[in-house]
Amino acid sequence: MELPSITAIEITLASTSKINTVDFENVVFGSTFTDHMLVCSYKNEKWQTPKIMPYAPFTLDPSAKVFHYGQAIFEGMKAYKDSNEDVWLFRPDQNFERFNKSAVRMAMPEITEEIFLGGLRKLLEIDKNWVQKNADSSLYIRPFMIATGTGVKASPSDEYTFAILLSPAKSYYSGEVKVIIANHYSRAANGGIGAAKAAGNYGGQFYPTKLAQENGFQQVIWTDDATHTKLEEAGTMNLFFKINDTLYTAPTSDRILDGVTRKSILALAKRENIKVEEKSLLVSELLAAAKNGSLKEIFGSGTAAVISPVAGFSYENDYYDLPKATDTTAEFLKDKLKAIQYKTAEDTFDWTVKI
Amino acid sequence: MELPSITAIEITLASTSKINTVDFENVVFGSTFTDHMLVCSYKNEKWQTPKIMPYAPFTLDPSAKVFHYGQAIFEGMKAYKDSNEDVWLFRPDQNFERFNKSAVRMAMPEITEEIFLGGLRKLLEIDKNWVQKNADSSLYIRPFMIATGTGVKASPSDEYTFAILLSPAKSYYSGEVKVIIANHYSRAANGGIGAAKAAGNYGGQFYPTKLAQENGFQQVIWTDDATHTKLEEAGTMNLFFKINDTLYTAPTSDRILDGVTRKSILALAKRENIKVEEKSLLVSELLAAAKNGSLKEIFGSGTAAVISPVAGFSYENDYYDLPKATDTTAEFLKDKLKAIQYKTAEDTFDWTVKI
Repeated sequence: MELPSITAIEITLASTSKINTVDFENVVFGSTFTDHMLVCSYKNEKWQTPKIMPYAPFTLDPSAKVFHYGQAIFEGMKAYKDSNEDVWLFRPDQNFERFNKSAVRMAMPEITEEIFLGGLRKLLEIDKNWVQKNADSSLYIRPFMIATGTGVKASPSDEYTFAILLSPAKSYYSGEVKVIIANHYSRAANGGIGAAKAAGNYGGQFYPTKLAQENGFQQVIWTDDATHTKLEEAGTMNLFFKINDTLYTAPTSDRILDGVTRKSILALAKRENIKVEEKSLLVSELLAAAKNGSLKEIFGSGTAAVISPVAGFSYENDYYDLPKATDTTAEFLKDKLKAIQYKTAEDTFDWTVKI
Repeated sequence: MELPSITAIEITLASTSKINTVDFENVVFGSTFTDHMLVCSYKNEKWQTPKIMPYAPFTLDPSAKVFHYGQAIFEGMKAYKDSNEDVWLFRPDQNFERFNKSAVRMAMPEITEEIFLGGLRKLLEIDKNWVQKNADSSLYIRPFMIATGTGVKASPSDEYTFAILLSPAKSYYSGEVKVIIANHYSRAANGGIGAAKAAGNYGGQFYPTKLAQENGFQQVIWTDDATHTKLEEAGTMNLFFKINDTLYTAPTSDRILDGVTRKSILALAKRENIKVEEKSLLVSELLAAAKNGSLKEIFGSGTAAVISPVAGFSYENDYYDLPKATDTTAEFLKDKLKAIQYKTAEDTFDWTVKI
């Protein structure tokens, strides 16, 4: 694919760049932003002219609906720099489509391809020096939309702000990732907003995740809220379980995010003749596999986390260590994926798009 | 009870009042605000000195966690003026307690009674002229807390803003309220945040509610997400169903808000010898009761809506009209409740608190 161009855009450049103040090798995920951002307002039932401007605070009425009713969605994407200094995006069409699906589910207006992808292209052209050229670095991209209309009545807003922020990134999780399987708290309801990248899905996980962290676990593996017997996702990652030679991942549903990395892994596994099944693995099946030795690996997948191996998991009062293997499927797939993203291998899927 | 006083507070009064520009008889719910608001910041692990200041916009970083992760909670309360020009609150301790329960569930810091109730008292003393003296008017109070810490990583914020807004109010729903029973979409997960007054619970309802409104229904009656067979709540109201002589309302759970009006109705009904059962009524039981004539009334309860009778409901493709009765239990209880709130009857429960 090729990214659309945008012509109707107002650009105000920063008078000075802060790029020389940034220690790119030691950035904390999501905490440093580039010189510019894209901002676009929705009012009178249409999107106004987008603006690229110096990164600066937002001013909102205290009764703005985003503060009271959680009408807010986002996406996570990354830009990569290859050895020729070219900047690439990975399947940006997928993020654009999912963003608009999230918008519909949250009663928010859909954005145009021109503003989302064309605007992003222009923003990346301006801040392209912020994409570092090494295989552990990327530029994390955060498109989001918030309800800015006013009034403390529980009804959809009539005004919105769409924006894109850029943040230089290293890896998301460092160190071992241990997880705990949820048996009380839940992430999403059947018929709820779990499949949308809606702000409210994340805040609701913080307390149970904090409890997990106090017990030495970095993440929670969410289970279905009705029975807590089916393994679903990890909140910021989809999950893969390797039992014998087969990878299992939960099918997408209205409780599970349709992850871009998840679907890319499914395609890569198929190309590499790795057996994959989209099926809801039961907690009981996972425990049996852990006990009889057929459970080989667990890993998470996501744009921020890429592919993140899990060292062990806890369920109720028992802890299960995963085998410490080399030549894992997680590493194999991560290498294949990164080779496509950083342009060191042929992109047989046509997933990458040049800025 | 008596409201606490607050001494550590900074007060800046508005130079002019906008009260004379307000048409109090025709205010739209939640859209007009008084001259002042209370704002208090949380940083370095403690609440800073609260400020009462002229109503004004907030300035937030574009990466503020409230925009991305929905870490936001609120309360809804009202102030009433009696015939002696005294201003009263209704069970404010209940809102304070619930606010802190919501805070814990959303991994946010609890607020002190001094700031929440003492600050509200001071704010109401300053803006007391905004409470109108008639039995259809009140001053709606919106305490809320948002995550203001920065960074697009899904983790709890380390900075927050607590604020209180005041908004003159007439009745919430005008005209007939018809509802539709959910059989696909859901409001809350078992083990989720449905019992918290969290922002994300509301935005997720907007799309299904919009679909309902397009079909002529004002509200959705939510059912349990696992089976869609149990009647729960209406998203901005708890629900009561009168079958023969008994009122049924769903028991509180982690899917259902512990409504202050709901629990006050339970107490009032008991005092007035009206039979009430806290039980999850099944959709099938409701349909049977509607068909055999034993279903007498449905009404919603909430601070904004007070007690709001339902004229009829839809389930799948059938519509069921409720009997058009006079001398309803809804009206009876509403009169009793308002008499306590507006101080025209004795407050045998000690629910009202003078400012």
